[in-house]
Amino acid sequence: MEMMQYNKGTGSLKNWLVEESAFDSRYLGKCEAIFALGNGYIGQRAALEERYVGETRGLFVTGTFNKFDENEVTELPNLPDLTWMDIWVDDTRFSMSECDTTDYSRTLNLKNGELTRKVTLHTRDGKNVRFTFKRFVSMADDHLMGTRVELETDSDIRLKVVTGVDGTVSNHGSQHLSEGDKRVYGGKILEYPCKTEQSGVSLILHTALLAEGKTRSMNDRRKLLTELTAEVVAGEKFTFDKISAVHSTRDLAYDGVAVEEAEKRLQPESLAAFEKVLEKSYDAHFEESEKAWAALWEDQDIFVGSENDFDQLGIRFALYHLNIMVKKDDSRVGIGAKAMTGEGYKGHSFWDTETFIFPYFMYAQPDTAKTLLTYRFKSLIGARNKAKENGYEGAMYPWESAWIDDGEVTPYYMGVEPITGNPQYCLTGKIELHVTADIALAVWQYYQTTGDQDFMDRCGYEILLDTARFWNSRLEWNADKNRYELTDVIGPDEYKEHVNNNAYTNYLVHLNMSLAAEIAGKLPQLNEKLYRTLCDKLGDLSKLKASIEEKLPLIYLPQPNAEGIIPQFDGYFDLKDLDLRKYKESPIVGLIYQDYNSHMLNDYKVAKQADVVELLYQQEDLFPADIKEKNYYYYEERTLHDSSLSKAIHSVLACDLGLHDVSYQMFEGALTTDLGQKMTSSNEGIHAANMGGIWQDVVMGFGGVRLYRGCLRIAPHLPDNWSELRYAIHWQGSRLAVTVRPGCVTIHNEGNAVDGLLLGGEKRSLASGETYTLDL
Amino acid sequence: MEMMQYNKGTGSLKNWLVEESAFDSRYLGKCEAIFALGNGYIGQRAALEERYVGETRGLFVTGTFNKFDENEVTELPNLPDLTWMDIWVDDTRFSMSECDTTDYSRTLNLKNGELTRKVTLHTRDGKNVRFTFKRFVSMADDHLMGTRVELETDSDIRLKVVTGVDGTVSNHGSQHLSEGDKRVYGGKILEYPCKTEQSGVSLILHTALLAEGKTRSMNDRRKLLTELTAEVVAGEKFTFDKISAVHSTRDLAYDGVAVEEAEKRLQPESLAAFEKVLEKSYDAHFEESEKAWAALWEDQDIFVGSENDFDQLGIRFALYHLNIMVKKDDSRVGIGAKAMTGEGYKGHSFWDTETFIFPYFMYAQPDTAKTLLTYRFKSLIGARNKAKENGYEGAMYPWESAWIDDGEVTPYYMGVEPITGNPQYCLTGKIELHVTADIALAVWQYYQTTGDQDFMDRCGYEILLDTARFWNSRLEWNADKNRYELTDVIGPDEYKEHVNNNAYTNYLVHLNMSLAAEIAGKLPQLNEKLYRTLCDKLGDLSKLKASIEEKLPLIYLPQPNAEGIIPQFDGYFDLKDLDLRKYKESPIVGLIYQDYNSHMLNDYKVAKQADVVELLYQQEDLFPADIKEKNYYYYEERTLHDSSLSKAIHSVLACDLGLHDVSYQMFEGALTTDLGQKMTSSNEGIHAANMGGIWQDVVMGFGGVRLYRGCLRIAPHLPDNWSELRYAIHWQGSRLAVTVRPGCVTIHNEGNAVDGLLLGGEKRSLASGETYTLDL
Repeated sequence: MEMMQYNKGTGSLKNWLVEESAFDSRYLGKCEAIFALGNGYIGQRAALEERYVGETRGLFVTGTFNKFDENEVTELPNLPDLTWMDIWVDDTRFSMSECDTTDYSRTLNLKNGELTRKVTLHTRDGKNVRFTFKRFVSMADDHLMGTRVELETDSDIRLKVVTGVDGTVSNHGSQHLSEGDKRVYGGKILEYPCKTEQSGVSLILHTALLAEGKTRSMNDRRKLLTELTAEVVAGEKFTFDKISAVHSTRDLAYDGVAVEEAEKRLQPESLAAFEKVLEKSYDAHFEESEKAWAALWEDQDIFVGSENDFDQLGIRFALYHLNIMVKKDDSRVGIGAKAMTGEGYKGHSFWDTETFIFPYFMYAQPDTAKTLLTYRFKSLIGARNKAKENGYEGAMYPWESAWIDDGEVTPYYMGVEPITGNPQYCLTGKIELHVTADIALAVWQYYQTTGDQDFMDRCGYEILLDTARFWNSRLEWNADKNRYELTDVIGPDEYKEHVNNNAYTNYLVHLNMSLAAEIAGKLPQLNEKLYRTLCDKLGDLSKLKASIEEKLPLIYLPQPNAEGIIPQFDGYFDLKDLDLRKYKESPIVGLIYQDYNSHMLNDYKVAKQADVVELLYQQEDLFPADIKEKNYYYYEERTLHDSSLSKAIHSVLACDLGLHDVSYQMFEGALTTDLGQKMTSSNEGIHAANMGGIWQDVVMGFGGVRLYRGCLRIAPHLPDNWSELRYAIHWQGSRLAVTVRPGCVTIHNEGNAVDGLLLGGEKRSLASGETYTLDL
Repeated sequence: MEMMQYNKGTGSLKNWLVEESAFDSRYLGKCEAIFALGNGYIGQRAALEERYVGETRGLFVTGTFNKFDENEVTELPNLPDLTWMDIWVDDTRFSMSECDTTDYSRTLNLKNGELTRKVTLHTRDGKNVRFTFKRFVSMADDHLMGTRVELETDSDIRLKVVTGVDGTVSNHGSQHLSEGDKRVYGGKILEYPCKTEQSGVSLILHTALLAEGKTRSMNDRRKLLTELTAEVVAGEKFTFDKISAVHSTRDLAYDGVAVEEAEKRLQPESLAAFEKVLEKSYDAHFEESEKAWAALWEDQDIFVGSENDFDQLGIRFALYHLNIMVKKDDSRVGIGAKAMTGEGYKGHSFWDTETFIFPYFMYAQPDTAKTLLTYRFKSLIGARNKAKENGYEGAMYPWESAWIDDGEVTPYYMGVEPITGNPQYCLTGKIELHVTADIALAVWQYYQTTGDQDFMDRCGYEILLDTARFWNSRLEWNADKNRYELTDVIGPDEYKEHVNNNAYTNYLVHLNMSLAAEIAGKLPQLNEKLYRTLCDKLGDLSKLKASIEEKLPLIYLPQPNAEGIIPQFDGYFDLKDLDLRKYKESPIVGLIYQDYNSHMLNDYKVAKQADVVELLYQQEDLFPADIKEKNYYYYEERTLHDSSLSKAIHSVLACDLGLHDVSYQMFEGALTTDLGQKMTSSNEGIHAANMGGIWQDVVMGFGGVRLYRGCLRIAPHLPDNWSELRYAIHWQGSRLAVTVRPGCVTIHNEGNAVDGLLLGGEKRSLASGETYTLDL
């Protein structure tokens, strides 16, 4: 039987529940990650209460980055654990791998963010105890987490529970936190202060175990615990709750407050807040969180009428994670590649944010999209430093980004390269350049979609111009070929290092520079004051414009060969062929690295992920459909999809090209990346970009939404087994509710009148409240 | 059935084997500690190969102290783990708590230092695999560790083993090590470099998995691994070995070498050494270690002819640990209170070394004793700093001592005090003073026992004089009572803080100062040059002598009251009585702290450990036997023996007083502190001092050895159920083999002629080769 179940919800819970229906201690990581709870401020990995060999407990608070030592890069610290509970029934220590247990089920309710586990313990003395564990991270209070445990027993038992704060956790052994002076208030509130060693972020965790029974506090190094003992009577239900909170000096509440001042305020303020929290019951707090979730879904849910229920669940699962992965009102923090569901990628933001996740927020929550772009605006400090360090001008965005002024944080040393035994170094931080243009493109798309002139004036133009300045200084003149080139780069396909003229990169750079030249040309008329300010900051923009315009026609843009195939980079067609079947069929991601190191891979026609395909999706006008289709097939055959940034993008392009079966197949591949039956795929955390990819696949692929020459085009292509698709998107400040059914699409404008819609090939406007149906 | 078995060895292994005969995952810590392997350089905790919830893996290398951060004190870092192995049989991950296993036994062979585990796995498919795990830490090569795994299976199986170096271990969450650039040589040798963050000690671990089968290397953050896969055929034996080594820049080989130079040499030299190691087989290395153990036992074994075999095993167990707890040739390192068998007490040296462990080395291995005292000599830097920081002169030894120049390293913050919830602070580093006199006494005893004038000239006099200088400045004049006092101290009994005139301390200080005055008086005649040198270093010693001699008669030395009881400190008799039965009967050490905090305990007549009793044992002439007996009973009744420094000392004093039953009872209590059936007593590591206590109990108690007024007295008192006791001790450079039988003792002088023996009340000499029998 498969461990993951997707069709258990009925009635109002239909397609809202993800269930793990069997426990297997070999596969702890997957559900720890995909069942993670959060609210954008907190990410709480779903390790079970009792400990297991192979578990990875995880608690993260956005923005609390710290660098362990000079050999490492800054990362999101794994904070002291609050979920662990040692539970003893008489002399039996409860464990599903060591004791006889039955009737297991663990369910994440996407609708209200509650994680529930049920399991029955059968002790050696023949006693049967039914446990129900519930958890939530509040959607109504950033700082709040709750656990409830219910027991029903058929015999009298002596219950002992030990839980509290466990500060022995670390990031794979690297400890970011100094332990402060622990306290216990009134024998009930445990207070665990700690501080990041290098970045000096102070944190305080509070927790209280609320139960009938005898409690006493205990402590050990990096631990502060409560022991509960109780006699539980047969037939009676015994319940205990654990309510916890975390606060830090990096909270938005202390933004702009001097460090010493914030440190002074943190302890009394967080304790007072926690005392206030304890005035209400677990039920009351959970209800508030549930309400916040209800409001969110009311606004954000997408309805898929598919013969395959999994499709509906899959998009909701993606929306669930998209909505817990970012603190929507804090523009000092980005989105981690594994969100806050694991230590993988250290909480760093990649191009994943702009290229994969951002479109969701841009269309569905423009305010959050603005927060994300503002994060990049605030990160210009680091981007400019990186450009300078590398000998360039302007803003060269970090390949991996952490706190706003950290700059480049990509780790250089990557461990041992398995083929030779030598150290392996990671070049993405040095030569994977396209992220800079990806960010510029996101800014431009946001502007076109929202018309948010204020953001452009404050942040957007500056990003677009300064990224173009970088490119302008980075381009290399090839006198032999009389053209500008970009050599020694890595494109999206990371199985190819040190390539010249990666098509994706060159085209995107061309676009980035064109947009900047256009802005530099128009701005003096549009907003002269701003133009002057920007000239003061970035140098004479008329000169920049002139320089760009001189170079633009000379930038080398790779063209299709005689067979219509665009070379991914210079010399691609000279590479050797490789039989990829072994790798394509394997469930092991990155299996090819066991046989080939990155140096060797450079010689073969094998890609990790969409590269030319990504380009053809992003810039649909570059080539005609037949060229795109040829390239799709050519490159897909040579792509291992070893990156989760691959399948959803393939699906959307296939959808555009009318390759419906292929498209749906790729969609299912994207859905099952985290949610499927592969039990080890998400160990290090969920694939955040893929959550955005799934959304793009549904709304931009099947839903047919696209920004096209400044217009919003809606041209759906429902999969054959879908009877309906309903989603909402924002356009120029108005929310449009879109319903797609076979043969027609209906658009209802819930906001003010908008224009610039491209429907059935025609440009249209839509009045406030207007509903428009287009036959497909 | 009891988990620990002590009588399984037969023939030449009789009373050499300690066995754990059942596996219970609730009780991992005990055997991890008591089965620890080592050689003085390495301490390897005996965590099992496969992981368990609740395990504490541990690898320590002497002297590699590091301080995690400003809130912590320096400690011996828990180094990357080499013992862990994930073992898969087909799809079953081997685990004794998760799989069906039978025929378990784990045995520490004290004779050859080999740890062997046998267990049979029954897979769900009905396959039966018999495992034998063997381990040793070489007694012949400081750096070398080996593991051998043998399998016999009744069905063909697919075996997978993953093992290597796991650097994610930490000290209860505090990570001391920075990870360096890992390497793999020839697909076989894993190289894992790391460095302590604050103290800058570089370490390199090498390991190789030697096996038939397919291997490949893998790595992850802080991990470098080899995966072995093999098809194991039914009926055939499959064996694989893992050989590992650790080297550091703090090795004796680099003593005096500049840090940069040592760092440069470490990698090539340790790799070359490891390559040389691999030229020989596991068997060859094990044999060399076994030979070294054989030579050690030949010299150090003690024979106990007891009706209770446990007595023989117990003393060998103590000797085993005494001989792996210290690097005998490295005078830069001391002995940790838990040796190197756990993280408890952070690898720090206490008075445990001089007062409990030192006598063994002094009598049985004088060279090691000299190493230990030289460590204290080298630590004078820190002791002088401590005196200065506290406003005193001379050498005030640290209560807890780590690297030679660290000075005082006692942690101040001790976690939360359970009664009030407030932070709890540890005062021993500030006011538990007696360690300074304990060290001075050890120096004096060593001198008397060995006659090692060279040591005295280089180190011993300076320690004795500078400690006396400290006391001379520390004594307080009480004008009302016309006496010198020592107020606000902690005596050996740590349940009493801030006491005045602790009897143990005052008497010992008096002795320390008397000895110094005597030396200061004689030295100008004995060695004028040295006297001048010491005057230059320590100030005018004639003035010191005069000052001490003026004070000595005025130092307050508490006297017995009307009932003959010596007050442990001022006002002791005014304290309240407490019913101690609950705590005395409880197996929980320190249970009283659940009801009383240290502040409250000050008000009651309750002691943690021997205090007045320790004094009466150490300075036997102070009081007549009847007073000693009264005090023994009075204080024992009020002592919880919550310290392992208690029972053995009680036993020796009881033995001296002829209280034979009591003495034997206390001896058994000391033997079972680590070795008994209490399965949680040794979780944090073995009780190193108690190992020395056991030796003192056997040799100084039952064996009747005592330094008395400059003579060696041998006056045995065999327990009733002992028919024989054989031990060897060194006196004035000669090894004396002593055989005790009921009614007589035979002493054979294996060395040069010695005098100063006190036998049957008479002073005697013993010619070289002479055997002397004394009727008792």
